[in-house]
Amino acid sequence: MTTKLPSDLEIARQAQLWPLADVAQRAGLPAESLIPYGRHAAKVDLDVLEGEPQRPPAKMIVVTAVTPTPLGEGKTTTAVGLAQGMAHIGQQAMLTLRQPSMGPTFGVKGGAAGGGYSQIVPMEMLNLHLTGDFHAVTAAHNLLAAMLDAHLFHGNALGLDPDNISWRRVLDINDRALRNVVIGLGPKEDGVTRQTGFDITAASEIMVILSLCSSLADLRTRLGRIVVGFTYGGEPVTAEQLGAAGAMTAILRDAIQPNLMQTLEHTPALIHAGPFGNIATGNSSVLADLVASRFSDYVITEAGFGADMGAERFFNVKCRVSGLIPAAAVLVVTVRALKAHSGRHRVAPGKALPAEMLEENPDDVRAGADNLRKHIEIVRGFGVSPVVAINVFPTDHESELEAVREIAEAAGARVARSTHVVHGGAGAAELARAVVAACEESSEFRPTYALDDSLASKLEKVATQVYGADSIELSAQAKKDLKRFEELGYGRLPVVIAKTHLSISSDPKLRGAPTGWTLPVREVRAAVGAGYVYAICGDMRTMPGLGATPAAQQIDLDEHGEIQGLF
Amino acid sequence: MTTKLPSDLEIARQAQLWPLADVAQRAGLPAESLIPYGRHAAKVDLDVLEGEPQRPPAKMIVVTAVTPTPLGEGKTTTAVGLAQGMAHIGQQAMLTLRQPSMGPTFGVKGGAAGGGYSQIVPMEMLNLHLTGDFHAVTAAHNLLAAMLDAHLFHGNALGLDPDNISWRRVLDINDRALRNVVIGLGPKEDGVTRQTGFDITAASEIMVILSLCSSLADLRTRLGRIVVGFTYGGEPVTAEQLGAAGAMTAILRDAIQPNLMQTLEHTPALIHAGPFGNIATGNSSVLADLVASRFSDYVITEAGFGADMGAERFFNVKCRVSGLIPAAAVLVVTVRALKAHSGRHRVAPGKALPAEMLEENPDDVRAGADNLRKHIEIVRGFGVSPVVAINVFPTDHESELEAVREIAEAAGARVARSTHVVHGGAGAAELARAVVAACEESSEFRPTYALDDSLASKLEKVATQVYGADSIELSAQAKKDLKRFEELGYGRLPVVIAKTHLSISSDPKLRGAPTGWTLPVREVRAAVGAGYVYAICGDMRTMPGLGATPAAQQIDLDEHGEIQGLF
Repeated sequence: MTTKLPSDLEIARQAQLWPLADVAQRAGLPAESLIPYGRHAAKVDLDVLEGEPQRPPAKMIVVTAVTPTPLGEGKTTTAVGLAQGMAHIGQQAMLTLRQPSMGPTFGVKGGAAGGGYSQIVPMEMLNLHLTGDFHAVTAAHNLLAAMLDAHLFHGNALGLDPDNISWRRVLDINDRALRNVVIGLGPKEDGVTRQTGFDITAASEIMVILSLCSSLADLRTRLGRIVVGFTYGGEPVTAEQLGAAGAMTAILRDAIQPNLMQTLEHTPALIHAGPFGNIATGNSSVLADLVASRFSDYVITEAGFGADMGAERFFNVKCRVSGLIPAAAVLVVTVRALKAHSGRHRVAPGKALPAEMLEENPDDVRAGADNLRKHIEIVRGFGVSPVVAINVFPTDHESELEAVREIAEAAGARVARSTHVVHGGAGAAELARAVVAACEESSEFRPTYALDDSLASKLEKVATQVYGADSIELSAQAKKDLKRFEELGYGRLPVVIAKTHLSISSDPKLRGAPTGWTLPVREVRAAVGAGYVYAICGDMRTMPGLGATPAAQQIDLDEHGEIQGLF
Repeated sequence: MTTKLPSDLEIARQAQLWPLADVAQRAGLPAESLIPYGRHAAKVDLDVLEGEPQRPPAKMIVVTAVTPTPLGEGKTTTAVGLAQGMAHIGQQAMLTLRQPSMGPTFGVKGGAAGGGYSQIVPMEMLNLHLTGDFHAVTAAHNLLAAMLDAHLFHGNALGLDPDNISWRRVLDINDRALRNVVIGLGPKEDGVTRQTGFDITAASEIMVILSLCSSLADLRTRLGRIVVGFTYGGEPVTAEQLGAAGAMTAILRDAIQPNLMQTLEHTPALIHAGPFGNIATGNSSVLADLVASRFSDYVITEAGFGADMGAERFFNVKCRVSGLIPAAAVLVVTVRALKAHSGRHRVAPGKALPAEMLEENPDDVRAGADNLRKHIEIVRGFGVSPVVAINVFPTDHESELEAVREIAEAAGARVARSTHVVHGGAGAAELARAVVAACEESSEFRPTYALDDSLASKLEKVATQVYGADSIELSAQAKKDLKRFEELGYGRLPVVIAKTHLSISSDPKLRGAPTGWTLPVREVRAAVGAGYVYAICGDMRTMPGLGATPAAQQIDLDEHGEIQGLF
């Protein structure tokens, strides 16, 4: 446990990558389906989805977590490690992961390529442009914005109310100064003056559309359905009405194809889309899941944040679109997360753990156990088998790791330690065996609500049955919003609850498994193109900022032209 | 001359593309230097520039034009046609062209892929993302802007004067509403409030840097040298001081490699960079020229607008960096351009030619002859042989075409008709032969000025010796700017004169070859990273707008998922 690990970048640099055709072969993907982008990534032609499948669909495994600390609990590394671990026990698996956002790479970086000996490589490609999908989302999003403002400028024939426009602009960057802007200043020919702002590209509705669409035709339909604002009379105005949807589809025609990369152990990974985990679905794409499930025995996908967040939307939103039935859920837990849930410690983003948290203290772990128990219950609530994966850190103590195991076993869950960061796939073999066993159980997957339920009822069911709230409290505005959305025909859409990921409740300060609380819904918005309605329950940041010494200042090329300081 | 031509898109669709490895072989490029991006484009590894060249450098041919009408005179089609024509006469040639900007593709589109049977294919790839270089420029540019605003927000240790910041943001889009904006509104944590704006990506200084840098190390140096604004004390503040240059280089590490594509006749073409032709150099990249000249017998490159604009900068700025000596210049002329220079007709952008301009009228052609004569003289002024290429339109009359030939021959220039749009390379065979003959002449290339000349003297020499102005008139501001730049050590930089491209003078209404005029210099700016000083002589638009019915409204996918309506 005291191995001194080389840095992620050093490990990644030493990797001998396989030709992608060999990686594809391992995934069962036909070589001719690969469209190369650079030497180490390829797009997969969606033609592979045509015709009758030659085999039963893969077993679908979602990797989720307990409520994380601001440092994250290693969900991506566990997903990568597990996929590598499957090969160690003779099973064939494929990963489907979100593409990391480039903005945070230059801010405070969490590292979205995995870590240690469980990484996607080349990591600098993954964390910068990859094949340009995020750029395409940015371009399509901003084309719609430009066409909207041009429509206002050229006479506003649709009668769009400038004070009721929800479509902003996006950039894949951390730039606080763009959160609130006034555009169209200067002489009259420089456009109509109005207030608006920029979000980070990952927060674009188009990013969610990219993640949820099931074909090029479906992409076209969803883009056309985007509501950019309302007329003076309260009627929605769509991208279709602005004549933008066709051109937006043309911009996204390549982006819709998932990107094939590999792990350090040459496990095939489809990297695709990267919607925000707080206001959006926080899951990789339906198309990547469909491709992977057609060719592999096991598909391992990661959902953002805790099981109350990304996994809930995986089950209630994404699986409804893909039609894929989850076979098991991996619940990543760390000693430090349960210690934090004891309420006895404070963990801050971008800072090292307080020294006292590293001392041996299984009591702290047990004091935070409620959070793990609640997440096990959340997963079970969907009729899915939970497998608790203890992501082992070098600083963990044996007594603490055992405490976690006892808590999980007492709750009736399968449990396994995983040392994939230090040992790669070999360190995840125990976890892989537990997952395979869980997948053998008969699944009785059940979403939390039916689409026929009213929007308010859907919100209430998620709040009470998933989060454990007593009830929801709709503000006057929220009630008005819901009524209007039902009238506009959005009533059959699924819901997303935009709340903090640092608590199962909507209060980031509440640790463990909060009870006796009410979910306050401030307002409700509709992502009609993506196909969901989302309730705002807290302050959601959709454009990060840069700190006083952003990570970008450490990034440069070395004398060989290789990127250094990326992580 | 009455052939009914299929549309550009139809012709492009019917093309049977060669595998890029075969195209590379034709260019003499080693197969292992190709890094594929999609099925029909590849980046060329800059390793090909290492080691001793195996052959003498190619003969360098720049394709320029008379002063164009707002419709353009077919410079790109001529460059493509000529390159194809070289093969028809048994010569080996390679093209180096700018990448078209995506913004105008969705506005009013001029078609930057060539046209008819002289096109770069696949045209939809060329006109949309290609390999993402423009996106990389956008990302690098805006990262610097975000780091600048973060610096202001976190205490402004460098003492940057918020009222003296010249670094704006960019997007590859036509969006007039972004020309003038106020950012940093809202609560204090949302940044420092200040006025700024967005330019189109092609107008970014980083795009010029991409076009002028000669290696990755040179790119890094130039990025660090970018001046974003000045301190309260008047000292320049650079990207290096903000700690941004390394990260920007990382973002641009792949973009620096030229992109290999092919013409309809499989002629190799390097597509790279796309700086604006009015405020910037308007030429494709030095690196593309260096790669092409190392492997080909002839390199054909296009420079923006007329010979007073792009070609002047090709000679005075780009060739100084690349060290390549131009062997000949092709001067594209059309019957319609000379008719327009008669002053008897008006041609408006985005509109069809007035009917009376299509009537047979060689007198109108002769009345506009001064413009052609002046451009021949401009080319000769650089010691380069001009070849006049008459780009034949189906609506031209024999007497008019003969009139053009007589004017060119009377001026002592080689001249050839070219019907490459209708007949592909075969239609440019006469032109190709004339170009080969011109290249056999001994070249006495001489730039207009020496770098040791003062900035004012450089501006004056270009204005008088190239444009034919009597003198220049510096405003008080311009004098102040020049003095300050000399003090700051920018005095040895070459100059760019930002003026209209619709006249050889700075007044867009003056046709032909204006005489007896003075060039008014309103202000002078420095692009220190790119490495030139530019004089503002007129209103330069750096962010286009969308019309009432933008081209985007016609673009969509057909039932096979193919893009339609792109042109």
